[in-house]
Amino acid sequence: MINKAVVLLSGGLDSTTTLYYAKKQKYDCYCLIFDYGQRHKKEIISAKKIAKLNSCHYYIIKFTLPWRGSSLIDGGLQIPFHKANQIGKTGVPSTYVPARNTIFISFALSLAETIGAESIFIGANAIDFSGYPDCRPEYYRQFNKLVSTAIPGKKIKIHTPLIDKTKAEIIRLGKKLNVPFELTWSCYSGGRLPCGKCDSCILRSKGFQEANS
Amino acid sequence: MINKAVVLLSGGLDSTTTLYYAKKQKYDCYCLIFDYGQRHKKEIISAKKIAKLNSCHYYIIKFTLPWRGSSLIDGGLQIPFHKANQIGKTGVPSTYVPARNTIFISFALSLAETIGAESIFIGANAIDFSGYPDCRPEYYRQFNKLVSTAIPGKKIKIHTPLIDKTKAEIIRLGKKLNVPFELTWSCYSGGRLPCGKCDSCILRSKGFQEANS
Repeated sequence: MINKAVVLLSGGLDSTTTLYYAKKQKYDCYCLIFDYGQRHKKEIISAKKIAKLNSCHYYIIKFTLPWRGSSLIDGGLQIPFHKANQIGKTGVPSTYVPARNTIFISFALSLAETIGAESIFIGANAIDFSGYPDCRPEYYRQFNKLVSTAIPGKKIKIHTPLIDKTKAEIIRLGKKLNVPFELTWSCYSGGRLPCGKCDSCILRSKGFQEANS
Repeated sequence: MINKAVVLLSGGLDSTTTLYYAKKQKYDCYCLIFDYGQRHKKEIISAKKIAKLNSCHYYIIKFTLPWRGSSLIDGGLQIPFHKANQIGKTGVPSTYVPARNTIFISFALSLAETIGAESIFIGANAIDFSGYPDCRPEYYRQFNKLVSTAIPGKKIKIHTPLIDKTKAEIIRLGKKLNVPFELTWSCYSGGRLPCGKCDSCILRSKGFQEANS
């Protein structure tokens, strides 16, 4: 029997590698894509392309947070720029969306319960990351405990295969898994080309440099 | 200083009593109303009326679950009818929406974090209820643990003041707090008048009978 998995797919490098990781393990993957008022739709377009390329089932959940509160969903706020060695070390940056991963995982849980999937995959990473609190291992340990009380009798588990990897390690893993990096989109801004200056661009670029060195 | 609270308001008897309970404790209440593809909009209309009556801030979050899976959001499925003494005792009924409360609380968490509220109120009840797993005390205990890791440095707590009360006790509390019961809507169906036959109608009617006897 093929096991089903729900994969949170943002269209970025990490979540795409996570999808390929889950596929490598022979899961029948149901991708969950969120349209939550991001500054741009580039990552959603990437996510859809990647899901289609892999003939995955996919769902797009659309919502807006009317209270905003993050530069990632509020065009009136400035995306912050840090030097590479400052990223994740100057407190939680303004790109953090309050409780975003909690919201995403809740929807994943709903889908998993409905289709009978026992696995949820998320590409969260706590090494080369921006310091978001909902990317840390302790948060996922606790969420798995919540899941066991929220949905008794079913064994649904959240998997975070990239949590302790550096960006370079993720890229090396992605290469092994034949991840089409050219289809992924990481930049926080929505220009025609990646800005090269935001935290996400810097982490990505640094990762490729290290992975290739 | 007036403390802020996020109150999950469905427009039903329990959540409205919970709002009045929070207001009695002098919280500045921010109501969160969900438009998630319910069979009817009656409860949303009720919730808005109640929030406005109390001059509360309120937000409506709109989303749909494309995978459906519940008779509460899938008009093609039949709402189940039970006898009063069977409700909550025949397994989880088809009105259960997978992970619904987890989704609702995640949004509440996002709002609480954004506005600096330390309290989230939800009218969950585990006595006269339909047997939904996400209405039980253990689930909320675990969610509070998750919150402390999801949002470090902030003390946000989920309060469930009705969790161990019978429907009659909730109604008596509501009476004391001057809850406008006539504005609340509990029926799962969306007729002009409550159907009187669904679990929610039966629990409500039984509660009023017991509270008045």
